Amino acid sequence: MFESAELGHTVDKKRWDAEVPALREALLQAQFALSQQKRCPVILLIGGVDGATSGETVKRLLEWMDPRHISVRAFPEPTDDERQRPPMWRFWQSLPPKGKIGILFGGWHTTPIVDRAEGRSTAAELDQNIQRIVRFERMLVAEGALLLKYWLHIPKEAQRLRLKALAKDPETAWRVTALDRQRFKRYDAFRKVAEHFIRQTSSGEAPWLITEATDERYRDLTVGQSVLAAVQERVAEKTSAHTPDRTPPLLPPIDAKDVLSELDFSKTITKAKYETQLERWQGQLATLTRDRRFRDRALVAVFEGNDAAGKGGAIRRLVGPLDPRQYDIIPIAAPTEEERAQPYLWRFWRHVPKLRAATIFDRSWYGRVLVERVEGLAPESEWMRAYDEINDFEHQLARFGVVVVKFWLAVTKDEQLKRFKDRERTPFKQFKITDDDWRNRKKWDAYRQAACDMVDRTSTTKAPWTLVPSNDKHWSRIHVLKTVCRAVERSLER
Amino acid sequence: MFESAELGHTVDKKRWDAEVPALREALLQAQFALSQQKRCPVILLIGGVDGATSGETVKRLLEWMDPRHISVRAFPEPTDDERQRPPMWRFWQSLPPKGKIGILFGGWHTTPIVDRAEGRSTAAELDQNIQRIVRFERMLVAEGALLLKYWLHIPKEAQRLRLKALAKDPETAWRVTALDRQRFKRYDAFRKVAEHFIRQTSSGEAPWLITEATDERYRDLTVGQSVLAAVQERVAEKTSAHTPDRTPPLLPPIDAKDVLSELDFSKTITKAKYETQLERWQGQLATLTRDRRFRDRALVAVFEGNDAAGKGGAIRRLVGPLDPRQYDIIPIAAPTEEERAQPYLWRFWRHVPKLRAATIFDRSWYGRVLVERVEGLAPESEWMRAYDEINDFEHQLARFGVVVVKFWLAVTKDEQLKRFKDRERTPFKQFKITDDDWRNRKKWDAYRQAACDMVDRTSTTKAPWTLVPSNDKHWSRIHVLKTVCRAVERSLER
Repeated sequence: MFESAELGHTVDKKRWDAEVPALREALLQAQFALSQQKRCPVILLIGGVDGATSGETVKRLLEWMDPRHISVRAFPEPTDDERQRPPMWRFWQSLPPKGKIGILFGGWHTTPIVDRAEGRSTAAELDQNIQRIVRFERMLVAEGALLLKYWLHIPKEAQRLRLKALAKDPETAWRVTALDRQRFKRYDAFRKVAEHFIRQTSSGEAPWLITEATDERYRDLTVGQSVLAAVQERVAEKTSAHTPDRTPPLLPPIDAKDVLSELDFSKTITKAKYETQLERWQGQLATLTRDRRFRDRALVAVFEGNDAAGKGGAIRRLVGPLDPRQYDIIPIAAPTEEERAQPYLWRFWRHVPKLRAATIFDRSWYGRVLVERVEGLAPESEWMRAYDEINDFEHQLARFGVVVVKFWLAVTKDEQLKRFKDRERTPFKQFKITDDDWRNRKKWDAYRQAACDMVDRTSTTKAPWTLVPSNDKHWSRIHVLKTVCRAVERSLER
Repeated sequence: MFESAELGHTVDKKRWDAEVPALREALLQAQFALSQQKRCPVILLIGGVDGATSGETVKRLLEWMDPRHISVRAFPEPTDDERQRPPMWRFWQSLPPKGKIGILFGGWHTTPIVDRAEGRSTAAELDQNIQRIVRFERMLVAEGALLLKYWLHIPKEAQRLRLKALAKDPETAWRVTALDRQRFKRYDAFRKVAEHFIRQTSSGEAPWLITEATDERYRDLTVGQSVLAAVQERVAEKTSAHTPDRTPPLLPPIDAKDVLSELDFSKTITKAKYETQLERWQGQLATLTRDRRFRDRALVAVFEGNDAAGKGGAIRRLVGPLDPRQYDIIPIAAPTEEERAQPYLWRFWRHVPKLRAATIFDRSWYGRVLVERVEGLAPESEWMRAYDEINDFEHQLARFGVVVVKFWLAVTKDEQLKRFKDRERTPFKQFKITDDDWRNRKKWDAYRQAACDMVDRTSTTKAPWTLVPSNDKHWSRIHVLKTVCRAVERSLER
């Protein structure tokens, strides 16, 4: 795999001087076209045995291109803020938007490889990391990203000489750190792990491109030309009018039974009992979220449901007992321009709570498989793959200690009509009812099937759906509170 | 995930009688269109807690459809023949060709799930299996297969009642085996593992479709209608003229150096020394392949290279010392019609050697990234993903104990010309030179880049490429023999 990166490739100064000006101009032009078209983000990962080498290459690319359209992010030890979130969070935050180039320097590949090479993780753990990375990269590519992965390889002997030469010269000796020496001792282990990693995370759409990095000119000219060719190709690519649909159809159950039809809408609670229960469960939630063990936990609560099912009211009762510095309520509307320039999950990644905190989503990432599916805003291939992407996302949260609870607040069609009419009649409720609500109501059955498919495909042990019959708002609120308390409790006991 | 398959779905006899005739007719029509179009194979996997249930569903589908275009394969304990090959081999052999429906009953999902649920494998092993399955299924889908995966779910209480009722009735008691009872005891573990497996192996293009299977009519009508809708959709799908190219370009090295240019073509050996060495290494290979430890090994040798580089001669010397019952030489030409109806690796899967045996491929699966790439027979997206598919395939062989050696026999352009002319002049060699050879020669540089990219992307520790400068045929033959001996030897020592 490293054969052709061990041949001693070089580029002489004459050729460098002759070729670089034209390359720079072409890169700038390609970059300009990319930023005008805003068709896709370009994500550059740079890996390899020697950190300094990647750093120099990044500097060169910045020198050649327009730095206003490039973002460079390095990932040294995680910051305090980053430690409070799942490991992938810092990468989610660092993705470039469409039209921009983002260089992720020591990206998501580094820790898994180094940890394995230095014996801090097992082969099985490496493979699990690889699996997650493959799924994540696959999602990025499906979302349209141009993902370019360069592996800068230095043969063992060349690396030995390189470190020696640097150390000898007083002006460069500082560049050889203890870490470099230590890494070099593990060169063979590193190489072996890297081969496995590169093989397993290469795909037709996001292959690792291995480049010999001993000679700086060869290295930088190679990477520069490769970036240029890839961006040029993407910019020139005609957008396809028709992508073949490869997803099998999801049919509704052939009897009338589904998870919604089987809900018991007669659930009800007296006003008096509601008051006592509310106090009891809010008290319990206050206690639980102030528990010492909750310092290693966080809460994500998702609210979806029929229009006028009472999401707002339930959310207010849920956050009542929480410390206001501790939670955010994120109402989800149509994505902003900034958000549309990113993978659809990006606007939710932003709001992942820190440890000890809670984020309540009033509508959520499930929009993709609900409104976007029903209204035809996302093609079938996109919402079909979203189920898995969502499961992956939620399981990353859960693995990190985030309690994930998801509510579908359901009302019957009659009850919804009653509430719509009530809203129209009551002056201070009129803002709550729009033409959209009536339009959605006409698609009642389509939304219903979408909701049932969503539950079938995304209700998992670690992130289960709770379907709440909400014809009685009081009963619904208590049920939500109780469910959250129990989920947090179970999590604290682990 | 199993919520809506635990609602007690039923279909009454009246509805069944009313709907089945139309369903059968539609299924037969869809099946006919599929077999006429030969656009894709349909692969049906059926899984679930209860084996009998899947069996009944399969019987029903066979009753409804034209059995001439369906193949059913069950996978009980592996046969002797199957035990001699990598675990996936029996599934490779069982895939339906384009235009046909293949039901794989207890497919590749069964063993990983059952082994984990019964504690015979670790969580990490399960995840490694999942990873392989995901990659394999992804390849099938990329090759155009319609992959339908049904999970027939029976809620715990329903399963308990079911087994009880069967056991009570003397006519059906025989159907409840000790295995059924034992499985039932592990119901919860099985369910948990199944959820994880289903989540990780579902994708937009090959999702698991979970169906409640307690009521036979509901179960069979649901599966029947789902198969119908999926096949109808695929048959009606317009073939896309343009699939967007998402693969970044592979560029040749920017200096003239590549793994071929760096070969030392001056390697040579005297006739006398050749004779001694030939005897020595052939003797060694005879000994090695008759070693007791070779009973758990097999050999796959791949020969690729320039036209007239001497593949035939090298192969003859290699098989010389082998027992003729022990090896096959498979010359690869253009695929037959039968082979074109399958994933491109299928024609090679067929020839995977048993343990103790050897298969020598004169040209190979690398055709996809060599001739098919250069001649434009496969689009870029296909040959780009082939590198990974090939690596997966070879690593499956290697993991099973197959020694994989791959040779690129290289001659210089001048030497080739000399040999071509010699062939034209020598009557008994004229059959060896065709117009194709001259045509290929015109594309020397394109083939060269394809060969170098191939080495870069598929030479791995477990299945390395050996590049053999072959201007001197004798030297080349000895080098091949020596390389094979050393690879077998290393493998025996493990």
